[in-house]
Amino acid sequence: MKIKNRHYRTIWPDPADRRIINIIDQRLLPHRFVIEELRTLADFATAIRDMHVRGAGLIGATAGFAMYGAALAAPTGDPGAYFSDCAQLLRATRPTAKNLAWAVERQLAAIGLEKDRDSRIKKSFQVACEIADEDALFCRRIGEHGVKLIAEISKRKNGQPVNILTHCNAGWLAFVDYGSATAPIYAAHAAGINIHVYVDETRPWLQGARLTAWELREEGVPHTLIADNTGGHLMQHAMVDMVIVGTDRTTRTGDVANKIGTYLKALAAHDNNIPFYVALPSSTFDWEIEDGIGQIPIEERSGDEVNYVSGLTADNRLETVLVPPAGTRSQNFGFDVTPARLVTALITERGVVAANREEIFRMFPEMKKDCS
Amino acid sequence: MKIKNRHYRTIWPDPADRRIINIIDQRLLPHRFVIEELRTLADFATAIRDMHVRGAGLIGATAGFAMYGAALAAPTGDPGAYFSDCAQLLRATRPTAKNLAWAVERQLAAIGLEKDRDSRIKKSFQVACEIADEDALFCRRIGEHGVKLIAEISKRKNGQPVNILTHCNAGWLAFVDYGSATAPIYAAHAAGINIHVYVDETRPWLQGARLTAWELREEGVPHTLIADNTGGHLMQHAMVDMVIVGTDRTTRTGDVANKIGTYLKALAAHDNNIPFYVALPSSTFDWEIEDGIGQIPIEERSGDEVNYVSGLTADNRLETVLVPPAGTRSQNFGFDVTPARLVTALITERGVVAANREEIFRMFPEMKKDCS
Repeated sequence: MKIKNRHYRTIWPDPADRRIINIIDQRLLPHRFVIEELRTLADFATAIRDMHVRGAGLIGATAGFAMYGAALAAPTGDPGAYFSDCAQLLRATRPTAKNLAWAVERQLAAIGLEKDRDSRIKKSFQVACEIADEDALFCRRIGEHGVKLIAEISKRKNGQPVNILTHCNAGWLAFVDYGSATAPIYAAHAAGINIHVYVDETRPWLQGARLTAWELREEGVPHTLIADNTGGHLMQHAMVDMVIVGTDRTTRTGDVANKIGTYLKALAAHDNNIPFYVALPSSTFDWEIEDGIGQIPIEERSGDEVNYVSGLTADNRLETVLVPPAGTRSQNFGFDVTPARLVTALITERGVVAANREEIFRMFPEMKKDCS
Repeated sequence: MKIKNRHYRTIWPDPADRRIINIIDQRLLPHRFVIEELRTLADFATAIRDMHVRGAGLIGATAGFAMYGAALAAPTGDPGAYFSDCAQLLRATRPTAKNLAWAVERQLAAIGLEKDRDSRIKKSFQVACEIADEDALFCRRIGEHGVKLIAEISKRKNGQPVNILTHCNAGWLAFVDYGSATAPIYAAHAAGINIHVYVDETRPWLQGARLTAWELREEGVPHTLIADNTGGHLMQHAMVDMVIVGTDRTTRTGDVANKIGTYLKALAAHDNNIPFYVALPSSTFDWEIEDGIGQIPIEERSGDEVNYVSGLTADNRLETVLVPPAGTRSQNFGFDVTPARLVTALITERGVVAANREEIFRMFPEMKKDCS
C-alpha cells in the first residue's frame, strides 16, 4: 500500500543485495519512518520478538525470510540439527502467532528436500518469496470477498457512511500488503463506497493509534481514533454498522485468538446485534485444536509496555514517559480468545464462511484428513 | 485515607482562612503531589471542568463549596438571579455527574431560605461541610456493607486471595474519603482479608494507572495494573472473583452511567458468571429517569485526551507525548451506560440492593413520592 503515494510492502529483499532483507521498523511509526536491514538469524529473531515487525501475516513472512537467513549462515556439509535449532529459536519469539510456526514448518519441509548448501539457500529464498507473495495475494482476495459485505450495508443505508470498527492493526503493516481486516476497507474505499472507520487505539502497544490510523491516513480513508473503552457505547447508540478484526490463530471450530480486548468488542457487538467479522488468510488456522480458550497459548509480555508510553514531544523528540507510580506491577497478556459463538463469519481468501467446524471444513476440505 | 501515612481528605477548608478551599490537583498525580487553593467561582468551575478534581462524590462536594465561594462573592442586598446563574455555570462543567446537580440544588434550596448576605455565607459553608461529611460517612457505610460480599468469597476460597477487578478511580480520590468501589476493598484490607485488585488503567485519562494504583499503594493493598483490554481474558480464565465499580449517575431502575468501558467489563462478567457490583452513595441516583441509555447525557470531551499522554521521563520531568499521527481526529466519550440486567447488585450506604426499581424503592421509600 502507499506511503506518501509510493507503493511499499512491509518486507522485501534488497534489490542491490538479496542477502539483505528490508523491513519497516514499526516501533518508530508513525513519527519516524525507518527502514531496517536484517541479515542474521539473531536480527530476525529480535525483529519479531521486540516487534520491529508484528501482525499475523508479517510475522509469518519474516519467519520465512529468517529461515533463508539461516540457510545463508548454515555450515557447509551436513547441517545436522542446525535448521531445527533455528526453527525452535524462531518459534519461541511469539508463542501465540500461528503463521510463525506455519512458515517455519513450510521452510523446514522445503529445505529438508535439498541436498546441498547452495540449493538450500536458493530454495529457502524461493519459499520465503512464495510465502510473502501468497500472503499478499490472499489478503487481496479477502478484500474482494469482504467488500461485498460492506457494499450490502452501504446499499441498505442508501450510501450513508458505513461505520466499521476495527481493533489493533490487522492492516497491511500486519501482513505483506493489503492487510486482513483492512483489505475489505481498502477495497470498499477504492470502489468509491462511503465508509468511515473507528480505530481502537489498542493498548498497551497502541497499534491502532500508531499504525492503523497512519495506514488509513496515507490511503485517505476517513477514520476516527477512539480509546478501547469506547466501542460498547458506540454500538449501543447505533454508531457502528459492523466490526472487522484480524486473528493470530484460529481453531478449526472458529474460535479466534486476536489482540487482547477483541473478546470485549465481540461481546458488545453480540449484545447490540451488530455483525462481527474476522478476516484471515488460512495460514492462521490451527487445524489441530478445537477449544481456543483452553488450548491456544496466550503470550505474556513485559509489564513495561503497560507502564510506559512513547510518542512525540512538542519539540519533535521521541520520548518515553512513565504513567503509574514508579514500581507498579503490571500484567500484559497479548491476546484473548473470542469464542466462535460471537463471530458472525470468517472472511478468508476462499470466501466468507460461518465460524463453525462443518462450514470451515466445507471450505477447506483438503484439511479434513489431518483432523479426527 | 493515607498519603505517606498522613491522613487526608480530597477537599478541605483552609484551617487558617476558611474562605480558601484546598484540593489536591489530581492532574499531577501520581508523580507530583500539589495542593491547590480555590477561592473564586471561576477557580471552582475550572477545577471541575479541567479535572483538577473528578469523581462522582468529589465533584458534588466541590460544587457544594463552589456555591459557598459564590456566596462569599455575592453582591450585597438582593442577590436577584446571581445564585441561579452560578448554579447554571457549575452544572455545565460536567454534564453526566449527578452529584454535581444534586449538591448545587441542595445549596440553592438552603441559600434561598436565608435573608441576608452574612447568613447566606454562613449557611452555605455549613451545607458544603455537611455534603462533604455525609459523602465520607456514606462511603464508610458502603465499605461496611460491601466487605461482607468480599468476606463470603474469601471464605469460599479458604482464604486464597479474592481477586477484585475495578475500572477507573472510584477510590477515595473520587469522593471526600474512603471511595465507593474502594470502600469495601479498604474495609476488607483493614479486616485482614486476603485480597488482590486488578486495576484497569482506564484510558484515556488513565485514572486507574495514575490514581487507583497510587491510592492502593499508599494503603498497602496488593494490586496489579492492566490495560483496559485485559479484563475479559482474566475472567475467561477464572482470574477475577468479582468486579466492583462506581457510578456517576444511576437511574431508579438500576442502570448505571460510569466511566467509558464499564459496560464492556459488565458484559464479560455476565458472560463468565462473575458477580458485577456497583458501589454508590444515594446522591448519584437520578430519581427522574428510567432508561439510562436513552436518557443520561454522555459528556464528550476533547480528543486531545486520547491523542496525548502525560507522564514522567527518565530524568524526572513531567512530559506530554503525542501518540497517533499529528492531526488525527479522535472522539472521547467520558461515560457509558451499563444496563441493570448486567448488574448483580448495588452497594449503597443503606445496604446491598438488587438493581431493579422495586428493590431500589424498597430501600429508599421516601423517594417514591417523587416518581410516577
